[in-house]
Amino acid sequence: MHKTQVMRFELTKDFLEKLNDAIARQNSTWIQDNVCELHDADIATIIDELDEDGAVYVYNLLEEEVQGDILMELDEDLREEILKSFSTKEIAEQVEQLDSDDAADLMGELPKSQVEEVISQIEDDETAEDIVDLLNYDPDTAGGLMQKEFMKVSIDWPVNRCVLDLRKQAEEVEKVYTIYVVDESEKLLGFLSLKRLLFAQPTTKIADLHQNKNVISVKTDAESEEVARIMEKYDLVSIPVVDLNNKLVGRITIDDVVDIIKDEAEKDFQMASGISENIESDDSVWKISRARMPWLLIGLMGGVFGAQVIAGFEGGIAEVPALAFFIPLITAMGGNVGVQSSAIVVQSLARGTDQFGSIFKKITKETLVALLNGFILSVIIYGIAYVFDSSTLGLVVSLSLFTVIIIAGIFGTLIPLLLDKYKIDPALATGPFITTLNDVVGLFIYLTIGILMYGI
Amino acid sequence: MHKTQVMRFELTKDFLEKLNDAIARQNSTWIQDNVCELHDADIATIIDELDEDGAVYVYNLLEEEVQGDILMELDEDLREEILKSFSTKEIAEQVEQLDSDDAADLMGELPKSQVEEVISQIEDDETAEDIVDLLNYDPDTAGGLMQKEFMKVSIDWPVNRCVLDLRKQAEEVEKVYTIYVVDESEKLLGFLSLKRLLFAQPTTKIADLHQNKNVISVKTDAESEEVARIMEKYDLVSIPVVDLNNKLVGRITIDDVVDIIKDEAEKDFQMASGISENIESDDSVWKISRARMPWLLIGLMGGVFGAQVIAGFEGGIAEVPALAFFIPLITAMGGNVGVQSSAIVVQSLARGTDQFGSIFKKITKETLVALLNGFILSVIIYGIAYVFDSSTLGLVVSLSLFTVIIIAGIFGTLIPLLLDKYKIDPALATGPFITTLNDVVGLFIYLTIGILMYGI
Repeated sequence: MHKTQVMRFELTKDFLEKLNDAIARQNSTWIQDNVCELHDADIATIIDELDEDGAVYVYNLLEEEVQGDILMELDEDLREEILKSFSTKEIAEQVEQLDSDDAADLMGELPKSQVEEVISQIEDDETAEDIVDLLNYDPDTAGGLMQKEFMKVSIDWPVNRCVLDLRKQAEEVEKVYTIYVVDESEKLLGFLSLKRLLFAQPTTKIADLHQNKNVISVKTDAESEEVARIMEKYDLVSIPVVDLNNKLVGRITIDDVVDIIKDEAEKDFQMASGISENIESDDSVWKISRARMPWLLIGLMGGVFGAQVIAGFEGGIAEVPALAFFIPLITAMGGNVGVQSSAIVVQSLARGTDQFGSIFKKITKETLVALLNGFILSVIIYGIAYVFDSSTLGLVVSLSLFTVIIIAGIFGTLIPLLLDKYKIDPALATGPFITTLNDVVGLFIYLTIGILMYGI
Repeated sequence: MHKTQVMRFELTKDFLEKLNDAIARQNSTWIQDNVCELHDADIATIIDELDEDGAVYVYNLLEEEVQGDILMELDEDLREEILKSFSTKEIAEQVEQLDSDDAADLMGELPKSQVEEVISQIEDDETAEDIVDLLNYDPDTAGGLMQKEFMKVSIDWPVNRCVLDLRKQAEEVEKVYTIYVVDESEKLLGFLSLKRLLFAQPTTKIADLHQNKNVISVKTDAESEEVARIMEKYDLVSIPVVDLNNKLVGRITIDDVVDIIKDEAEKDFQMASGISENIESDDSVWKISRARMPWLLIGLMGGVFGAQVIAGFEGGIAEVPALAFFIPLITAMGGNVGVQSSAIVVQSLARGTDQFGSIFKKITKETLVALLNGFILSVIIYGIAYVFDSSTLGLVVSLSLFTVIIIAGIFGTLIPLLLDKYKIDPALATGPFITTLNDVVGLFIYLTIGILMYGI
């Protein structure tokens, strides 16, 4: 019987306490037995939970060959601290352990003054060249995402020559998904799965074995969101990257793209929540504060406009103070409906669906939804406002609520579509922006109807 | 020279017009040359843009072996329509073309009465058995996600026997990422990359070649979000699924999980935007309306509570109508700050980070951010309200704004944490719920301070 090893590590408070204890007592044996044996990703999770000194201590106990990969999985701030404790020579050693894309990312995080020095300390010339090359690309493009490690074969070779050559290439490439097929000038012609190669006759020519129909690739300057969309659409685990001459220069793997897909989806949520930078809950007070300020200022200005609208009706409110009762209801409902409508539009734009649906059709549908919801809610609020104060107030509130819901629905649909048309991120429309606009418009409608109905 | 085939299809309005024209004139040659040659995913995108009759027409022109895959990529409603035009025999033929996970998903969409009939029409017994087995699992678990197509070898075999056996297995398995290693009772012991197998000596035993450290797997009853989190954390492109006895029963590939990762991130956005079901912009008016209603009713009730608060201060407002001016500002700012604070908490909970950060630390930080933002905004609004009306109103508005921002920040942090503690989705707290709560509390603070300062 073979021992079954299937299990997954769960980080518990108890484990962390034991670890901190071991660190305090410099008990390296306990750490080696209980931490260093785990999966890289688990080790990174554990180190992320330690304080700086503890993190550096545990990191230095790790086997050299896994250090680099773990370093790249740590929180950026902690990685910076660990790197500070290293000489440029030591950093160069870590960099040599990494895949070229991670190596370039790491160099990008170093102070500019250090980059050249670290590169000059890298012993393997080819590695250094690859990194320098990758640093030329914008990090948010396919060139910035790609790695130089991939497997390629020439279209003129037979299978047995490929296997020999790939055996050499395999030393450099950690994960092989697809073998790319190129011509004598390195132009991408097609691809070949390892599976096909494994089961082919040794003398079969690659030209007869490879797939050359619907080869999906991206150019180095493709935006990373575009890369993510293509890999998602075509269900790819890796995608070849070519230059303007269609020469194969790198590949991007799905694990790097999953993060982009997630960040994209989260960005809309942050926009809708009024946060303008990508922040996390452990960022500094200053950074969090700064990221929220723009939206709060928009809200503040909206509130001032709202005050101006109400001030225009001061006489009316002095005469019928009950009119003030439902001000928050009108503004809240306008905001809610506006955010709901815009969220749907933003999401379908982000998904890239409905590209040919006409604006007119969308507005019509949104108006129908608003009519239906507006009607139901108006009837409810009429009853409540009637009991609350009077049938006049009931009529004022229900009529204006109905109008506000319809206008908010139309604004909520139209504005993100317009922003998108003018190449502005439509998610801008879902946050405090649309709420504020609807507040001002809603107030005006409500108070106008109020003045008219009360005959003030 | 070999012809370069690298290019990507872009769907244009012009292309769609030509296609609709070809459909109208039953020009099957044009469609075969211009549509059927494309990548499956592109064909699906095109068919999704057609009307029902056009979609069925183009679908029937496709080669039989790609029909199933394309069917699974279509919009659900359209797929339903296409399936309606088929006999159960024809559906069974389509199902046989599919991977077992897609086949089970398709069966899950059929009316219950049809499922048995279709299964009885499937010619290959093993395929039918696999589907019946998969239908037993909850679709939102690892069992419901997995496919029965994977490659496995016995730990006792040598490499050459494996290659022979895998050649047979390869006919069933479209994409091979990892070969799983099992013992004589099918228990999962480890894994092996195709790369390792390709370059190994023919007589090497699998026992000496496979990796058995840190084997990551999931149980059939693991929730799909859990599967997504694990694959993301460990950068996996496929994960083995085992039953309670650790017997290998299936595998899940990353392409199916990417959709879950995206849906998860989008769900928070929808919650924050006040939409309670997963809807898309092309759903029916009724469905969209129903999905939004619960949030609007919460907003309405909040507005009624707000009205009650203001009514309690009716005398004060009658005396100083200017107090009403800044009601929308106070409610809007309370809402904005609350949503900002809760969004950060919801996101870090969703990411699974900060699991050991104490609640007290979070509240302290959020209070600091609120103090800072509250101070800046209060100074600004004091100046504005002073110019607007009087220094008394300036003091009332700035004092209450300051208080409301701090309370909203604390509520926004605390409520999602509490919901999470009691196993309720914390994203509930980001939407209209927290806005409404902050509205009511904010109004009370504002009007109380107003009454006190004006000495009414």
